[in-house]
Amino acid sequence: MPYSPLAILGYGQTAFGELWDVSLTSLLQSATLTAIKNSGLKANQIDAIYVANMASGNYEYQMHLNSLVSSFFPHHPPTFRLEAACASGGLAVVAATHALQSGAFKHVLVVGAEKMTDVGTGEATKILSGAASVATEYGSTFPGLYALLAQLYRSRYHLMPSDLRQALSLISSRAHDSALTNQYAQFQKAISPDAITASPLVADPLRVFDCSSLSDGAAAIVLTLDSDKKLYPTLPHLISSGHAQDSLDLAGRSNLPHLTATSTATKQTFDQVGITRNDISVIELHDCFTIAEILAIEDMGFLKPGTAVTKLLKHGYYKKNLLINPSGGLKACGHPVGATGIKQIGSVCKYLTSLPTSSRYGLTHNVGGTGGTVIVHLIEGGKS
Amino acid sequence: MPYSPLAILGYGQTAFGELWDVSLTSLLQSATLTAIKNSGLKANQIDAIYVANMASGNYEYQMHLNSLVSSFFPHHPPTFRLEAACASGGLAVVAATHALQSGAFKHVLVVGAEKMTDVGTGEATKILSGAASVATEYGSTFPGLYALLAQLYRSRYHLMPSDLRQALSLISSRAHDSALTNQYAQFQKAISPDAITASPLVADPLRVFDCSSLSDGAAAIVLTLDSDKKLYPTLPHLISSGHAQDSLDLAGRSNLPHLTATSTATKQTFDQVGITRNDISVIELHDCFTIAEILAIEDMGFLKPGTAVTKLLKHGYYKKNLLINPSGGLKACGHPVGATGIKQIGSVCKYLTSLPTSSRYGLTHNVGGTGGTVIVHLIEGGKS
Repeated sequence: MPYSPLAILGYGQTAFGELWDVSLTSLLQSATLTAIKNSGLKANQIDAIYVANMASGNYEYQMHLNSLVSSFFPHHPPTFRLEAACASGGLAVVAATHALQSGAFKHVLVVGAEKMTDVGTGEATKILSGAASVATEYGSTFPGLYALLAQLYRSRYHLMPSDLRQALSLISSRAHDSALTNQYAQFQKAISPDAITASPLVADPLRVFDCSSLSDGAAAIVLTLDSDKKLYPTLPHLISSGHAQDSLDLAGRSNLPHLTATSTATKQTFDQVGITRNDISVIELHDCFTIAEILAIEDMGFLKPGTAVTKLLKHGYYKKNLLINPSGGLKACGHPVGATGIKQIGSVCKYLTSLPTSSRYGLTHNVGGTGGTVIVHLIEGGKS
Repeated sequence: MPYSPLAILGYGQTAFGELWDVSLTSLLQSATLTAIKNSGLKANQIDAIYVANMASGNYEYQMHLNSLVSSFFPHHPPTFRLEAACASGGLAVVAATHALQSGAFKHVLVVGAEKMTDVGTGEATKILSGAASVATEYGSTFPGLYALLAQLYRSRYHLMPSDLRQALSLISSRAHDSALTNQYAQFQKAISPDAITASPLVADPLRVFDCSSLSDGAAAIVLTLDSDKKLYPTLPHLISSGHAQDSLDLAGRSNLPHLTATSTATKQTFDQVGITRNDISVIELHDCFTIAEILAIEDMGFLKPGTAVTKLLKHGYYKKNLLINPSGGLKACGHPVGATGIKQIGSVCKYLTSLPTSSRYGLTHNVGGTGGTVIVHLIEGGKS
């Protein structure tokens, strides 16, 4: 597709966590206001809004969120609601991108939110299962489906269970370390690899601390077209996006445990611009479960299939100078589903700014379900 | 916005009704296959898909419909799911339009569906209430909210209850007459105005036969850019769209009982092209309740506010040679929520083809909730 860079004018988010005293509406309002304030725009300069949310219809019987969010604004801008399970945020950005590229709107807000902790864990687990195929994977939970992927991965690459376990615990522990410095993170607490290994089993080999949690939260960005990156040279830009689908159910996949849609979306992202994986300094990837990080780093083409565990155990990293999930990822920052894909963009922008100036590019990787939808965005940092 | 005409290459729909032996997936498949077949394209020429659905997450705990529909295609095209309550179908077409205008895709399928009759009426009513503001209109049903609008309308324009009643019964009866010749309609049965007036009260003044019903069904169209309408001169074209929002809750409205978003969206639609209301021969408007038709015809600017009832009682029509809801509308054709906005387009295309050649333009009017979202599309018939 023809793709002109988009300046990321502003970002805002709420705390992620169990926010029992805050409503979905408040979360959406708070992230929206912060992003607009940070963009330097006035509210009435927002020409359209894209709302990302998976399941407010289930959590609180509230649908029609596009009208709800438009109601915040006296001028009631046209508003869309996008859903692609856990990839809702990334997908909403893609839809916004198309509208901006078409010239329909000048300034667009994308806001994602989820309020998940007002229902019990059982009900939330059932709701989240709606991201899988209810017809063919009836009754499966997401820990169960990702545990299947983990077992397949271990078996296909002849890994010792203990090696896989150790790698998963390192991943989770590193996520918690990263979240220590993220004031918005749900879990700002260090957890040792041993403590993760000792946590209760959920679905073998996944343990409690391998799983992202139920979270409340919202995140928002403001975007505008900036074709030659000269209007806003000091700001980060979204310069390319990939959007790939695969069969909803695992039974329809061609290369399990790998998520082909991740490979396809990443390839699309790089193919559009003259940038390679070696140019990438930071990735916010979709670690809904620790095994998902291993799959992601391989499926995005940063490591050969089946090598991530060995690499991690030997070096403690996948690739030198490649920062993974500085926000704490879904695991430790929290995973309010509709917000995640947008929070990833905010985090990559932040860390591109804080890294050495030679670090100019970052990726976000947002997965719906077990990879039925994958969205990848490529962000270029602003010139200081 | 810059807007190039889009050729409507193909249309398909399922029967609308209580389809207890058909799944949501089957409905989506069936409409998709028919639309593609009618477009003359091969399935692998579909570059992207927009899925419209309000509440499959509630009706059957299935979300992530974009991946579900993409799974039908061996090449897994990128797919979006849009929701704006009962305006989901119209909104999905707007999002598809932006992508086509941007050049991201060449051929796009928009498919909408809802499977509503597998839950009881109480649960379905609760789910549909999610299109209103759960926070401020807690517990309100949609018949209740539209009854409020009807009472406000009657009071504001000093109508006799019996006159309003008679008008509403004429509207419903005419919808049922129209549906008699629509093989896909849920209710292919004539019902006299007297029988409608005698039907049980739901929310005063709305009676059972004033209300659209719970329906299962799907509808799909295939769109492509055709800037000068020369690629497909014999096919109908989407030549303009309006998309307006208003506050989600009625308490935030400025001109009740009128739906300002209908006025705004209709104005947007006409402002983009040199076409006036006098050029319109057919409208598929959003008659979720009979009172909604009266509001729509006034708010779209075809009649002055407060005059529709008198006009209807005196002449039996709003405007000579202006065909209203030839499909039977939401009332008699049925209202499988996600499908409705797309079915409206299919119906307008069909009737523009069957009307005299001087009739070249038609409108669709798709409302979310009580008018928090309104989408209007303007369609030009093909040259025979």
